[in-house]
Amino acid sequence: MPLPLLRSQSEFLPQVTALQSSREYHGKMTTFAKPVATISLRPYSSVPRLLTMDAFAVTTFTKRISATSDRVAIEPGVPRENDNFCKTGRYNLSPTAFACSTPPDDGCLCRYYVHKANFCHKLPEGVSYEEAALIEPLSVGIHACRRAGVTLGSNVLICGAGPIGLLCLLVAKFMGAAQVLITDLYPERLLAAKEMGADITVQAKRETPQEMADIVSGHLSGMPDITIECTGAEACIQTAIYATRSGGTVALVGLGSPMVNIPIVNASSREVDIKGIFRYCNTWPVAISLVASGRLNVRSLVTHRFSLEDSLQAFETTHQGHGIKVMIRCDKDDPL
Amino acid sequence: MPLPLLRSQSEFLPQVTALQSSREYHGKMTTFAKPVATISLRPYSSVPRLLTMDAFAVTTFTKRISATSDRVAIEPGVPRENDNFCKTGRYNLSPTAFACSTPPDDGCLCRYYVHKANFCHKLPEGVSYEEAALIEPLSVGIHACRRAGVTLGSNVLICGAGPIGLLCLLVAKFMGAAQVLITDLYPERLLAAKEMGADITVQAKRETPQEMADIVSGHLSGMPDITIECTGAEACIQTAIYATRSGGTVALVGLGSPMVNIPIVNASSREVDIKGIFRYCNTWPVAISLVASGRLNVRSLVTHRFSLEDSLQAFETTHQGHGIKVMIRCDKDDPL
Amino acid sequence: MPLPLLRSQSEFLPQVTALQSSREYHGKMTTFAKPVATISLRPYSSVPRLLTMDAFAVTTFTKRISATSDRVAIEPGVPRENDNFCKTGRYNLSPTAFACSTPPDDGCLCRYYVHKANFCHKLPEGVSYEEAALIEPLSVGIHACRRAGVTLGSNVLICGAGPIGLLCLLVAKFMGAAQVLITDLYPERLLAAKEMGADITVQAKRETPQEMADIVSGHLSGMPDITIECTGAEACIQTAIYATRSGGTVALVGLGSPMVNIPIVNASSREVDIKGIFRYCNTWPVAISLVASGRLNVRSLVTHRFSLEDSLQAFETTHQGHGIKVMIRCDKDDPL
Amino acid sequence: MPLPLLRSQSEFLPQVTALQSSREYHGKMTTFAKPVATISLRPYSSVPRLLTMDAFAVTTFTKRISATSDRVAIEPGVPRENDNFCKTGRYNLSPTAFACSTPPDDGCLCRYYVHKANFCHKLPEGVSYEEAALIEPLSVGIHACRRAGVTLGSNVLICGAGPIGLLCLLVAKFMGAAQVLITDLYPERLLAAKEMGADITVQAKRETPQEMADIVSGHLSGMPDITIECTGAEACIQTAIYATRSGGTVALVGLGSPMVNIPIVNASSREVDIKGIFRYCNTWPVAISLVASGRLNVRSLVTHRFSLEDSLQAFETTHQGHGIKVMIRCDKDDPL
Repeated sequence: MPLPLLRSQSEFLPQVTALQSSREYHGKMTTFAKPVATISLRPYSSVPRLLTMDAFAVTTFTKRISATSDRVAIEPGVPRENDNFCKTGRYNLSPTAFACSTPPDDGCLCRYYVHKANFCHKLPEGVSYEEAALIEPLSVGIHACRRAGVTLGSNVLICGAGPIGLLCLLVAKFMGAAQVLITDLYPERLLAAKEMGADITVQAKRETPQEMADIVSGHLSGMPDITIECTGAEACIQTAIYATRSGGTVALVGLGSPMVNIPIVNASSREVDIKGIFRYCNTWPVAISLVASGRLNVRSLVTHRFSLEDSLQAFETTHQGHGIKVMIRCDKDDPL
Repeated sequence: MPLPLLRSQSEFLPQVTALQSSREYHGKMTTFAKPVATISLRPYSSVPRLLTMDAFAVTTFTKRISATSDRVAIEPGVPRENDNFCKTGRYNLSPTAFACSTPPDDGCLCRYYVHKANFCHKLPEGVSYEEAALIEPLSVGIHACRRAGVTLGSNVLICGAGPIGLLCLLVAKFMGAAQVLITDLYPERLLAAKEMGADITVQAKRETPQEMADIVSGHLSGMPDITIECTGAEACIQTAIYATRSGGTVALVGLGSPMVNIPIVNASSREVDIKGIFRYCNTWPVAISLVASGRLNVRSLVTHRFSLEDSLQAFETTHQGHGIKVMIRCDKDDPL
Repeated sequence: MPLPLLRSQSEFLPQVTALQSSREYHGKMTTFAKPVATISLRPYSSVPRLLTMDAFAVTTFTKRISATSDRVAIEPGVPRENDNFCKTGRYNLSPTAFACSTPPDDGCLCRYYVHKANFCHKLPEGVSYEEAALIEPLSVGIHACRRAGVTLGSNVLICGAGPIGLLCLLVAKFMGAAQVLITDLYPERLLAAKEMGADITVQAKRETPQEMADIVSGHLSGMPDITIECTGAEACIQTAIYATRSGGTVALVGLGSPMVNIPIVNASSREVDIKGIFRYCNTWPVAISLVASGRLNVRSLVTHRFSLEDSLQAFETTHQGHGIKVMIRCDKDDPL
Repeated sequence: MPLPLLRSQSEFLPQVTALQSSREYHGKMTTFAKPVATISLRPYSSVPRLLTMDAFAVTTFTKRISATSDRVAIEPGVPRENDNFCKTGRYNLSPTAFACSTPPDDGCLCRYYVHKANFCHKLPEGVSYEEAALIEPLSVGIHACRRAGVTLGSNVLICGAGPIGLLCLLVAKFMGAAQVLITDLYPERLLAAKEMGADITVQAKRETPQEMADIVSGHLSGMPDITIECTGAEACIQTAIYATRSGGTVALVGLGSPMVNIPIVNASSREVDIKGIFRYCNTWPVAISLVASGRLNVRSLVTHRFSLEDSLQAFETTHQGHGIKVMIRCDKDDPL
């Protein structure tokens, strides 16, 4: 199969080396994804959103990525036009964005992939392809914690200990949060949260949102400054509002029902701000430097690994909700 | 009747000269409000929240208010304790606050009233007592526009052209908003809004929230950056969210039903922040300087005036929803 | 002379219709500026930095500018690459920026000029070319007031009543500043400032910086929240620091000597922030909406007008320091 | 000696248990500091600024500190009046502040000390008095890093590896800084910095400020986002400006000569903000929670310990510049 052509100097052609399996998006294959087509992924509702790449067969690109042997992580959402969202630093909100693997935009489950050079971020030595592939979900955590305003000494409630909740936990602690309390229905997820640094874990049962809020403030000796809601469930969104201290922030990361019943007078009259999260923005350079520092262990999130040829199984595993992060390794020589 | 005693140097005893009639709060009279009691206001569900005062019979107080003849405007909400809300500049959120006229705290419909000196703000010459009495509702507008982030060039939607909506309009224009579009059910209120500087007025009829949002963006040649919701109605809150541009802010000023059905995925996935408003904070000095500059005409909001003896009628008028602002004049010599 | 060619769909070819004469920058002519070359401007040290244009002979460009007859104002500084400065909303700081008329980048004193379409901002009806040409210096005022944090109720000191000082004055008042005090050496400039809305004007004589600071706080009944320094003179920068209240901001707009002696302990120990200004960022849309609203009268800054053929005289006039803004009209049909 | 009397319910009387020796401030003894006077400290130019206390003999005080056996850390700077600085969350700037140990305000080298209850912060179990006594210098680091805007992924240059530089280092890493480079003249201080988590240390020699800036950016693979200047030396302040990336921040913590020659055009035209630091504001609760979490090891800063009776020697040691933090232990039973 011939390599895809670059149309301008602003493009970059990396070789795919590691992928993250995701069940969040329906997607088409990229038109040149021959090796993938043979394992007939189309029936599955998911394609990976992130990949890490080895710079291969690239002749010209921008100054920032200077040698053909650079290793890069790609940021999958790229605005097509420099509109006011981009000019004001919020390019994730641009309606012109190409969002890799989000219909109608192609995914990148393939050996070679063309991408804007400015959204291919150079990897320092010591960051493996697999770690780099985890920068996409890590970016969600970073964007959520930033929007929520997590800072030195924050007390944080995280609703939901799935992969995104756990990444928010990691990032919040890294940003200096004093205490993070995380809730979930399942004890095994709370155990994972505990191992990843949660100060307090609370198993949710049949409590009302107000009762849950009281339990939280009891554990934290006060209401949390910030709640990061990662489930999308109505009851949890309500808990998030009741639980957060006056003047605090609720960040909504999980998406559920389009319309939700919200205790709006409670939120308003205590000036609890409600902020949503849409993907991420300016997170890759930061995330890469954190992973490179060796102080943020994202690898502990990986519970399963498959070869590119076994991608089918990877998606199946993710689909069934097993494990935390299911990875597809495209390069057998990556030392993990 | 003897004058009330001051308990410390941090207190201040002004004479009441102008009041604003309000229908928002149930309240008890102050225990020493003899002259008021004689006109039996207790059956009414409202007492004034704001008043302007003439410094009278005060011997010692803080340096800021140096002469016994100072004229002051009082800020009715005063934190009783210097807690973390106060220390971080958000004293309006302090649960320790004394809120004049808000049960269980006494109101101030009386000739003399004791108040913390640091919450009595000196009036420059040229600001009448009546104007000073309007600083309280003006403060709501200031706090709302600040929390909403109104700034140079903002396009703003205001839902509701009642007194608070009109004050938000005045303040938003003053802060440099490019265009303010205001909606209401009643054409006479929209007419008043037009006269006070609204760029566009839209009469709401039977549109769905989405239809209303489309009408708004049609008029503004784009979605507003900010929506200030002053009605508290569920349909308007929904409109506010649908109408606001991605990355913008909805400020909720009006309070209605405690639980409201909100298009949360729409808000979240476009990063439209939802922020409530609780009273005001650090608005008096700013508001006084604006009124003193002569550039912000708050007097145009006053549609009715009553003497202190006719307070009963004033409350009746407010209660029936007549006019915009109904004032009680305590000092006949105030030149308006 | 043939029209210049467009190299891609992201470019735009407008016809030049109005120019602003400037003495700030040395510059080369654009390579295709034939009509200009004939009036031999090269010996002069200035070329215009801003121009307004009529969309002419353009066949394809971005969606935002949809018809060939659109009138646009161009933003002269354009980043060549989407680097981290651009991605975080501070594209003015990008070292990759093309800065029209700033060596080594060509100026635009010519009939036709190729520019990035995303930096050509559509003009609404009612904004003349001349007003549009004034959006560049207005942008400096907007960027300065934004960086300085001017907001509702700010008390502002502006040092220097030249064109930029006056524009900062206009913008500060428009953003809701309570009082603006402006200083200058020349009474005629202070008179112009007074006419444009300055609340207080002070003629600087032989005062020391501390004396000047005392005079300012005497006039404002307190220290200003913000000082916008537009002269670049060492004494004024010192005055700016001494004059500004604790916790306030000094914005440095004027550029003078590279090294300046600064009372740094005074600034530091009162947390007076010192912030510089480099051009502007995200100001065109805002500035256009202000001018279009009719509430910000930039035309009052224009004291001289010349035809394109008389550009020589225009630059001579600017060079000699006459007037406030000297304009070059390229289109005789522009109604001003 | 009789215990000092409390004048109101807002006061609090703790017993002093640990002190920090400081050479920064001249100070008088408190009037009731008998035990101290006997060891004739007056000739020395320093009294401690911070102390930790055991609640003793206190009968009534605010709700926040509910039992007479509470252990507290005191915040030494207390505004005497609730002025606009306090109301806007910047109480450290209030000119009314009582600043313990800063002339003309008394110090607290004594067994019992009266202080405002709201500025006595309760200590959780597990935080020793000595750790609590280190919250004052830790607060300087927190306030500096906050004002500088240190956040997730920041690259930070710290000039000076003395106690404050080291505390800024600890805090910056805790807030998520990616890399911290610290400079000093003395290799032994850089060694201490390395042990406390500095990513890179650079020994300053005879480099010019520009050369030093180049060395820094060489080590960090780019200019730092933030520089925290802790020496007060002119050359270091210049280095701080040259070294910091466009759009970054220089925080000035060290105080030296009142007038300093600053490359102001370099700073201005790259929008490098210059921000001073005055003590701290809202840092105690955060600092206590960090120390309580066990993740921030402040004890590693302590190099010398003296009993209260040997305070003389403690001040002598500090005065001679030995060690990092010299502590005075007032309570022999404190487990460190």
